[in-house]
Amino acid sequence: MHPAPHLLDLPHHDGSAVHVPPGTPRLGDSVLVRVRVPRDSGVERVWVRSVRDGEPRLTEATPDAGTDADRWFTADVVVHNPVTPYRFLLDGPGGYRWLNGRGVHDRDVSDAGDFRLTTHAPGPAWMGEGLVYQIFPDRFARSAAADARPVPDWAVAAQWEDEPAGTGVLAGTQYYGGDIDGIVEHLDHLAALGVGTVYLTPVFPGRSNHRYDASTFHEVDPLLGGDEAYARLAEAVHARGMRLMGDITTNHTGEGHEWFATALADPDSPEHAMYVWADPSGDTTDVSTTASGEHYASWLGFGSLPKLDWGAPETWRRMVTDPDAPIGRYLRPPFELDGWRVDVANMTGRWADQDRTHAVARELRAAIERERPDGALIAEHFHDAIEDLRAGGWHANMNYTGFTRPAWSWLAAEGSPAAAHGLPVAGARRPGGAMVAAMREFDSAVPWSVTARQWNMLGSHDTPRLRTTVDSDAAAEVAAALLFTYPGTPVVFAGDEIGATGDNGEHARTTMAWDEEARGGGPRWDAEILERYQRLSAMRRGSAALRDGGLRWAVVEDDAVVFLRETPSERVLVVLARGPWAGTVLPGHLLDPGAQRERLYGDVGLDVGPDGLTVDGAGPGVGVFRLSTAA
Amino acid sequence: MHPAPHLLDLPHHDGSAVHVPPGTPRLGDSVLVRVRVPRDSGVERVWVRSVRDGEPRLTEATPDAGTDADRWFTADVVVHNPVTPYRFLLDGPGGYRWLNGRGVHDRDVSDAGDFRLTTHAPGPAWMGEGLVYQIFPDRFARSAAADARPVPDWAVAAQWEDEPAGTGVLAGTQYYGGDIDGIVEHLDHLAALGVGTVYLTPVFPGRSNHRYDASTFHEVDPLLGGDEAYARLAEAVHARGMRLMGDITTNHTGEGHEWFATALADPDSPEHAMYVWADPSGDTTDVSTTASGEHYASWLGFGSLPKLDWGAPETWRRMVTDPDAPIGRYLRPPFELDGWRVDVANMTGRWADQDRTHAVARELRAAIERERPDGALIAEHFHDAIEDLRAGGWHANMNYTGFTRPAWSWLAAEGSPAAAHGLPVAGARRPGGAMVAAMREFDSAVPWSVTARQWNMLGSHDTPRLRTTVDSDAAAEVAAALLFTYPGTPVVFAGDEIGATGDNGEHARTTMAWDEEARGGGPRWDAEILERYQRLSAMRRGSAALRDGGLRWAVVEDDAVVFLRETPSERVLVVLARGPWAGTVLPGHLLDPGAQRERLYGDVGLDVGPDGLTVDGAGPGVGVFRLSTAA
Repeated sequence: MHPAPHLLDLPHHDGSAVHVPPGTPRLGDSVLVRVRVPRDSGVERVWVRSVRDGEPRLTEATPDAGTDADRWFTADVVVHNPVTPYRFLLDGPGGYRWLNGRGVHDRDVSDAGDFRLTTHAPGPAWMGEGLVYQIFPDRFARSAAADARPVPDWAVAAQWEDEPAGTGVLAGTQYYGGDIDGIVEHLDHLAALGVGTVYLTPVFPGRSNHRYDASTFHEVDPLLGGDEAYARLAEAVHARGMRLMGDITTNHTGEGHEWFATALADPDSPEHAMYVWADPSGDTTDVSTTASGEHYASWLGFGSLPKLDWGAPETWRRMVTDPDAPIGRYLRPPFELDGWRVDVANMTGRWADQDRTHAVARELRAAIERERPDGALIAEHFHDAIEDLRAGGWHANMNYTGFTRPAWSWLAAEGSPAAAHGLPVAGARRPGGAMVAAMREFDSAVPWSVTARQWNMLGSHDTPRLRTTVDSDAAAEVAAALLFTYPGTPVVFAGDEIGATGDNGEHARTTMAWDEEARGGGPRWDAEILERYQRLSAMRRGSAALRDGGLRWAVVEDDAVVFLRETPSERVLVVLARGPWAGTVLPGHLLDPGAQRERLYGDVGLDVGPDGLTVDGAGPGVGVFRLSTAA
Repeated sequence: MHPAPHLLDLPHHDGSAVHVPPGTPRLGDSVLVRVRVPRDSGVERVWVRSVRDGEPRLTEATPDAGTDADRWFTADVVVHNPVTPYRFLLDGPGGYRWLNGRGVHDRDVSDAGDFRLTTHAPGPAWMGEGLVYQIFPDRFARSAAADARPVPDWAVAAQWEDEPAGTGVLAGTQYYGGDIDGIVEHLDHLAALGVGTVYLTPVFPGRSNHRYDASTFHEVDPLLGGDEAYARLAEAVHARGMRLMGDITTNHTGEGHEWFATALADPDSPEHAMYVWADPSGDTTDVSTTASGEHYASWLGFGSLPKLDWGAPETWRRMVTDPDAPIGRYLRPPFELDGWRVDVANMTGRWADQDRTHAVARELRAAIERERPDGALIAEHFHDAIEDLRAGGWHANMNYTGFTRPAWSWLAAEGSPAAAHGLPVAGARRPGGAMVAAMREFDSAVPWSVTARQWNMLGSHDTPRLRTTVDSDAAAEVAAALLFTYPGTPVVFAGDEIGATGDNGEHARTTMAWDEEARGGGPRWDAEILERYQRLSAMRRGSAALRDGGLRWAVVEDDAVVFLRETPSERVLVVLARGPWAGTVLPGHLLDPGAQRERLYGDVGLDVGPDGLTVDGAGPGVGVFRLSTAA
């Protein structure tokens, strides 16, 4: 078998510090961008093409310092618009080519894959530091106080070790009684995992175990311990140097929300204007009906979730701008949340011919920054979030589309129903090229400052569990290694780190088997997987390249992908194989002079010899190596 | 040599009447869309995925009537938003696939290539009927009155047969003295060519031969014959059943414009607010300076073209909403223009953090429709116009990006400088796959109602001439055949039909050699090419499929492309080869039962036999065939 070819002869650029100076440009600034042009690429001259006011401008790039292997070119891009697209024109024998975020192209392309500079500040630096740990409060842990609380009228009590219902009424009403003080009691587990941010799904009262149907935003659910417990959690989390993020629905409230009750009782109330009322003579998809016969828009037609109208000034006031509006209130003492994850961000403010999503997102960010300049705002957009992520509102997105689904598509078991989550078909196992093409299609379309802060997940409370999707421990390890080595912030849904399974979002909302932890492991607490997550997390914390480095694809084969993460002083090589493959030989100059290759994780072999760096074709497997002297 | 494979086993959909009912949906309407699924495609079930309020919804499609070759599936798409993206999920052995406007995909894709239904009305039907004939008034013809006019102070008189200057001051000042009555005298030439719409570049007074630097919008340049001549032209054009379109600059005026003069004279004048004044301490690209030291934005930094500020209400009033504002005024008697082509549409209303382009375009359309509901609005966007074309303002665009450049890239002579127009490199000759990929990337991203009205060109007053770009008569014929068979409206820059040459836009502004016409041809009047254009134009007028049909790619090879244009009752096969190729064998069922293949144009062989339709591999060459009984 011949070694697989590598892509490192292609010119490369991304938005990381190797190529673009750190910091957020202001309108009118010139930014000196750098492009790496391997001497073997055949490229002789380079121009940067940037778009200003809709019109491209070409500027020839200047040859800069080089190495035996690479030439570097630099050029100024003027940030004339808040989002300034640019790409590179490469000339040499065989005709001109374009380099954009999707790679090198032998034809003219649209601006969709252009690199982008933006004046919109990125998410705060802490977003990139540790992993985000997602907790579904009903399922994480019960404090002693939980036993004393009555089961609410909407709920069906479950035993802690019960398997969650995946479908039916029970999926929303099954009640395990986890509470906030239960989380406080288990922060050691988070600390050992290297958690940087604790993210709790909603804590507002509702009539469901998921609490996305808030009945008020003015208090934390007493069933979870109320405001006091939330304040205790915040204090304990912050005392450990972690961050705490909340979860809020801006698209809808619960049917039982106090505002909706007032709206129903009084059509002339300010609250009535806060909801989207529908014309029943038109399209009635996603329209529900009140007891009195009023028609209202609801989330996917679920009457329990009436849709907020962001065309109403009252909605802006109650949600955002009033002094006690929830967006700001929970960022202040005693809670001091560090930011919000926003549910159904993709639909927020959108209805028929109204589209206020970008305006809402920008106002949410402004409201957060008024309370704390380092606050974070994460969207939940399960689908194509490209246009929303350029608008300067959301700092980043829950990256199902650019990370989760592509990763699943490569690592899923053939025909896995879980891998087809959200589609009415069987899942497909795709070659590495399909995964990488999908990742690049989405990554390339947003500024690097967004890519570097995306919330990457291998699953969440809304999806099947990774372990079920891939149906093999070896594939799950490859997936975890991808999560901790890919640009963006790793997000771990509590339970993934101990091998939890689940067929769909509801079924995946498993409880944490603390009893098994105490015994050193068990069927619901896989200590080996936990140790793996702890090591991967520590590896990422110890490597600036893995946290903030650029991304250069080196090999994209059906069964293996190899890439580089690079800062100006550190280079890390990542080898991921889902099965046996041919291996590859990479250029020797990737190893810095004087550096030894340092294995950071995994077993894949890497030999340094006169021909270069020989990567063996063992698989499934992982190899992560530092190739520089500096970390 | 084996025959080239065809793509007709792939499922297909586009926005034409075979697949989508004609007409513009209203918000909330359900539209029944149809998808063709060849029995050989391996597809078993089909869903339509449409996006509403940012959230996809999947609906299973229903098997409909079929043939031996194809199954048809139908599904309702609710037009919930003004632009509703949709695509198809295909399931069968090997895993699910997606069908969007770019083809069939074995991986998840962004929404960028989705089909799109829109509530925005398309351009008027007449836009698609005949070809658009573009006239640069200074170069088309001189009436007797022209001799009596003095050469203006800014101009350098040229002889009619002089070669235009391609560079230097002369490019803008060389003055041939063509006038509007000269056009009136030559409408027979247009009629013989099958012209449906006469489009004149600007007729307002200025200080250049191109007149894009208007000094007023309130009268037609007396050097062209003034308002009276323009009214005579309008009357004569309309009397022949043709349409007349004007050309206006909304991005800028001339430095000599009466508004700018007032602005300079009085900083407190309403006119002063109409221009973009720049802060010289920031980015000064595209900023010019007045004699008194004021800094203003100008088109690409040309001080002669000060940029209008669409943030100023006065600009809206003077340009659009005042009773005598030019947008409406010239659509009323005695001119009754049928619409506007808008210069530099891509930059109009854009400056730094201001982006009012879509609002301006929508208001221009509304203003036109107030005067004449069937008026047309065409953008000049030389680059990636995708987002602008979805906004409901511009009916269509001058389609350099989705048609001209891809066509050039396939047919250009290797290394042709002309083919690299706008780029500082040599042009490249690309394979058919590169042309088709570029076309599909741009076409697919806009609603079909836009694609069907795009202004397709093989060149214009802003580009090299086709004949120079391709450097061969055979390639020029293939290009012309593509122009008249591709979806959209063919636009011919006066002179292309007689073989004019030119290295760049200015050099391409050749005069029409009427003296040679009188003699039956000459070096500057190629009667054979003219006859070719006349035949191609007549062919298109005689075929509903060529005017309005869908587009199905059948073969995409390096040296040949084959596609189908189809209406519910007519099927036309188009074969274009830039050189010899392997030929192909297409399915016999493409020929309607009882139909003979009818050759509409060209010499490429097509044999009907028991194995199917055998297309010979001769090239360069063209073959256009009707495969149905009905036209």
